[in-house]
Amino acid sequence: MPAEKPSIKSFPIASRLRDGRALALDVWSVFNATNLPSDCINLGQGYMNFAPPPWAREAAEQALRSVEGNHYSPPKGRLRLRKALKEFYSPQFGRELDPESEIVVTSGANEGQYAAWTAFLEQGDEVIIFEPFFDQYLPSIVFNGGKPVYVPLHPSTEGTPGAEFGKKTWNIDFDELKRAITPRTKMIVLNTPHNPVGKVFTRDELERVAQLAETHDLIVMSDEVYESLVFDGREHVRFATLPGMWERTITVGSAGKLFAATGWRVGWLIGPPALMGPTSAATTRIVFCTNSPMQEAVAAGFEQARERGFFETQLREYVERRAVLVDAFERLGLEYAWPEGSYFILLNISRVRWPEDYTFPATLDGRGRDFKAAWFIANEVGVSSIPVSEFYCEEHVSIGENYARFAFCKDLDTLRRAAERLQRLRDFLV
Amino acid sequence: MPAEKPSIKSFPIASRLRDGRALALDVWSVFNATNLPSDCINLGQGYMNFAPPPWAREAAEQALRSVEGNHYSPPKGRLRLRKALKEFYSPQFGRELDPESEIVVTSGANEGQYAAWTAFLEQGDEVIIFEPFFDQYLPSIVFNGGKPVYVPLHPSTEGTPGAEFGKKTWNIDFDELKRAITPRTKMIVLNTPHNPVGKVFTRDELERVAQLAETHDLIVMSDEVYESLVFDGREHVRFATLPGMWERTITVGSAGKLFAATGWRVGWLIGPPALMGPTSAATTRIVFCTNSPMQEAVAAGFEQARERGFFETQLREYVERRAVLVDAFERLGLEYAWPEGSYFILLNISRVRWPEDYTFPATLDGRGRDFKAAWFIANEVGVSSIPVSEFYCEEHVSIGENYARFAFCKDLDTLRRAAERLQRLRDFLV
Ligand SMILES: Cc1ncc(COP(=O)(O)O)c(C=O)c1O
Ligand SMILES: Cc1ncc(COP(=O)(O)O)c(C=O)c1O
Repeated sequence: MPAEKPSIKSFPIASRLRDGRALALDVWSVFNATNLPSDCINLGQGYMNFAPPPWAREAAEQALRSVEGNHYSPPKGRLRLRKALKEFYSPQFGRELDPESEIVVTSGANEGQYAAWTAFLEQGDEVIIFEPFFDQYLPSIVFNGGKPVYVPLHPSTEGTPGAEFGKKTWNIDFDELKRAITPRTKMIVLNTPHNPVGKVFTRDELERVAQLAETHDLIVMSDEVYESLVFDGREHVRFATLPGMWERTITVGSAGKLFAATGWRVGWLIGPPALMGPTSAATTRIVFCTNSPMQEAVAAGFEQARERGFFETQLREYVERRAVLVDAFERLGLEYAWPEGSYFILLNISRVRWPEDYTFPATLDGRGRDFKAAWFIANEVGVSSIPVSEFYCEEHVSIGENYARFAFCKDLDTLRRAAERLQRLRDFLV
Repeated sequence: MPAEKPSIKSFPIASRLRDGRALALDVWSVFNATNLPSDCINLGQGYMNFAPPPWAREAAEQALRSVEGNHYSPPKGRLRLRKALKEFYSPQFGRELDPESEIVVTSGANEGQYAAWTAFLEQGDEVIIFEPFFDQYLPSIVFNGGKPVYVPLHPSTEGTPGAEFGKKTWNIDFDELKRAITPRTKMIVLNTPHNPVGKVFTRDELERVAQLAETHDLIVMSDEVYESLVFDGREHVRFATLPGMWERTITVGSAGKLFAATGWRVGWLIGPPALMGPTSAATTRIVFCTNSPMQEAVAAGFEQARERGFFETQLREYVERRAVLVDAFERLGLEYAWPEGSYFILLNISRVRWPEDYTFPATLDGRGRDFKAAWFIANEVGVSSIPVSEFYCEEHVSIGENYARFAFCKDLDTLRRAAERLQRLRDFLV
């Protein structure tokens, strides 16, 4: 038989991977604990160093001791969980959610977002994402044939050091947003509360986005995984509750963030049947279903959260945690973005200077200045963070280069030790 | 601002969904327990009605009681699990597997296969799959831009009723396979032991596939999720161990099948770094990582399986289970495919006749004859199965139409009751 194709001995990866930064050494690998001093305090990655509530975990243990709790769940999620989600969210959405057609359980928010893009993106469809963005968006959109279009949030230049600084900053330039919309625009991705900026979008800002979504007939993916972490009495406005927006909004949630259980890999999507049906079909093919024991745990979490005052207590704890880092940055006199929500603080590291002969590993070559600053801080001060230029497209790297992201989803003791160490930065400021 | 696009008020799904049968009512929904008589014995779906081993589950409970076991795992899998996989599989692959570059943990075998297609398929790349096929292959390949090319296994027409029948049947026509290969062929998907045929491919058959893979420089995805269920002393030949095949083979495994834990959603891929690297990048973006507690359980499963003789005991139990159904079909004098492996038996239902005025639900309209037969058996005899035409492309439906698939991954008592009920089929045979 003829060799119809010359033997190439290695298999070229799909172009979607080449386009998607997916194969480059990502920031998480560069700043992985194994590459940093062993006693470095990890405020880089966004997972907690405390456990989820035991009364939720117990439901997983019960499931594990059953037969059926160890086997396949319905692809769109276990009924107990979908009902619990309906109870929890219906009042917040101001409508009676239908667990059959308006709620889909996914394998983390991440896979849910991926499935929604699989369901709706055609080759070349444009998706607007605001910079800085959660870094998974970019490759997930590209893998599904979409084209990310970047609109940067602009940190205000009039910022003054300290809390007031943050309060003024990181805004959408609506003219820029309008200019980014083309006939190929299919979707806008919103994220409120925002990772990594900590911004909670105001009703006014969201209404202006809603108007554009209406005019240009766009789907809006509203990533609200940090919904339970909105501080200082601010309002978490659900984009889907704005007039006319239910029909075009996919709201994204995550048990990992709500219940301090990032490793359970349970998330969900909420939206109208026209958006949930196809997304559910996509997730069914991608993962078939989400793991069963942890779905039971999350269901129990929602069932009991209110009577236990869980989210209120958790919020108070995060306010305390935030205060520790904020105080550390205030004492240093460094600019930072005041976290209105989420568990991240952006620190302006443009004043940090390292000795001229300081040596950096080759993995930092060609990366933004922030990679060097974060590396220096991790190694000399002993607190790791994540350089923010990774959350920008290449063209806009210079905006991100001034910031490092610190996560405060850690216990108070750890944060206090980090705050103490950070004071040593004073010797390296100009 | 101008409305650049007319408002369409509904969002068209991506063409990949339309092409992929993904939105049609699938066989699992038609034959869902909720649509069948409540006392129907479910031999349709391929999940167990017994629990995974308690000593494996205990490791998940331990993880749940820790901090770190509730949080993100490394995207390519927890080191404990990758090491356990290395220990278990290295002897079977006849090489020292590297847990860093040759093993990737995935969210079920299903998501692993999806990720491999994401990593390697370009728009229009052809993937050869043998019919009948595990029904998730088709949409998963299509979603990733691939084009499934179908090569049917042929049931032998000389089959005699009973065990001997099965032994002779369901073979690859190698001329047909050769003709199916084109310059666009990128991959062949093998499945041994086979769902739903129960066939275990022989070394000779696999070597002939290997030769074609070599000549045409193809990737081979070898789906071996039923690897632990190979009966009658038959040999499970790992495709990757054939001469020259390691470099081009992705081997697929599933904790769901190995440990009776379909709802844990833990699977893995094994292969050379050139195939695992890109697949790992893809799975990282699709799900980020697999749930942590169940990875611990699977690690414990592998660590203790040998000293506990777990797989040997499990195999003996499945042999007993198989005997119950085989005996029921023998007593009926119906043809069936002898299961050399897996936990499925195909029953030839072409001799089943229902009253002319029997009424079927509208969901069966336009489906193969097997849909009617399986429906009739479920409703009149009280045992559900899955019609096999669903596992064929439209063109080849007529081959599948003669068969229904019965799963014997159920406890003996359930199978015995099913066997008893099935005798009532005698009244409806011609
Ligand atoms: C903004 C945002 N969206 C989605 C996710 C993914 O959440 P999950 O862990 O549930 O996949 C994260 C996780 O960090 C996030 O920060
Ligand atoms: C042949 C085959 N491959 C893959 C899978 C998927 O396995 P998992 O449940 O680990 O995703 C199945 C499940 O039925 C199967 O039969």
